[in-house]
Amino acid sequence: MSTGPTSAGVPTAGPVPPVLLALRPEIGELGGSNARYEKFLTDLEGLYRDADAYREQLAGDDGRPVYWVESSQTEDGPGGLITGISVLEPGVVGTEYAMTRGHLHAISDRSELYVGLSGHGVMILDAVEGDSRVVEIGPGQAVYVPGHWVHRSVNTGTERLSTLFCYAGDAGQDYGIIERAGGMKSLVVVDGDGWSVQPNPDHRGYELAERA
Amino acid sequence: MSTGPTSAGVPTAGPVPPVLLALRPEIGELGGSNARYEKFLTDLEGLYRDADAYREQLAGDDGRPVYWVESSQTEDGPGGLITGISVLEPGVVGTEYAMTRGHLHAISDRSELYVGLSGHGVMILDAVEGDSRVVEIGPGQAVYVPGHWVHRSVNTGTERLSTLFCYAGDAGQDYGIIERAGGMKSLVVVDGDGWSVQPNPDHRGYELAERA
Repeated sequence: MSTGPTSAGVPTAGPVPPVLLALRPEIGELGGSNARYEKFLTDLEGLYRDADAYREQLAGDDGRPVYWVESSQTEDGPGGLITGISVLEPGVVGTEYAMTRGHLHAISDRSELYVGLSGHGVMILDAVEGDSRVVEIGPGQAVYVPGHWVHRSVNTGTERLSTLFCYAGDAGQDYGIIERAGGMKSLVVVDGDGWSVQPNPDHRGYELAERA
Repeated sequence: MSTGPTSAGVPTAGPVPPVLLALRPEIGELGGSNARYEKFLTDLEGLYRDADAYREQLAGDDGRPVYWVESSQTEDGPGGLITGISVLEPGVVGTEYAMTRGHLHAISDRSELYVGLSGHGVMILDAVEGDSRVVEIGPGQAVYVPGHWVHRSVNTGTERLSTLFCYAGDAGQDYGIIERAGGMKSLVVVDGDGWSVQPNPDHRGYELAERA
């Protein structure tokens, strides 16, 4: 049993209370969440291959977040799950569509479920040793990311891409693995009115944090 | 690393592949799932308090499932998650709205996320020792069920109630705990055009399977 606050705020023995979450993907909010983080264009130095295009966009940056996460975690034990929504504004930098930094879980066998809520995009999924896959996600579509897959979301549409996620509370994130590898194996680039996948010529293989 | 089948079906070292899931709540299907189970009215002897009303419905039963689950599990290890949809037909037996058997996880600290996809209902949540809560679930609403809470879905609407769920692959289910307790702590009953909650006079406290 964990401890949870009573209605008077005094911790007492007993399970933590259930959490009611209101999904508001269009406005990018998760009602009932207890954590939020935001990423700004200035945080994404080195994420996109075209450094000139990135600097040009920075010069005209309006300072609003380019993506953010609202999430809920109320249990620290091994049985707890973290759930939240990830909201990614649309855009293009050079030829690459707007994307998140991406990560592998720090405990790399931990899997994650993503459920499309609004907008249209893809997930790039790289096995640490093996395949690279690019799969679509949007309303009515979910992607189960097993352990040992580095993953990132890409907004290939013109609206916000909002996804709901759920993963083990102890999973953690290794956000550096992609930077150390020179990027993911695949790029998702503008191709006419749509998108296509190209191999990333800068990718030099993944190195796990434990071995780095 | 787990082993996964290659496209030729020969197991090979490497992570299992990602799974693409198509949510079709209105027709009660999860595209890409690899398991399904169904519950029929004949399976639910003793679930509803009004035994006469139950027998009367059985006499006119059309033999179609009253609820079913389509799910996906591809990893056996500690990092794997099971995800799926639960689909519950509407109905009333005596004064109680149609419901699932409900369960506590066999590893009782394992939590579960439910996301409303279609229809309207409630979840009854009983702490093994403590509170009983009844919370609404429907499109745009999610309920995080922490460990140590017995939980059940109830369809209080006139359409199918479909929810997406996600929980740890090792959690398991103790389906007998509610029967051993004489039912859950709360009943969700017809009240005019809506529903209300009544204490269940038959509930005699929960006994965990380990101690039973």
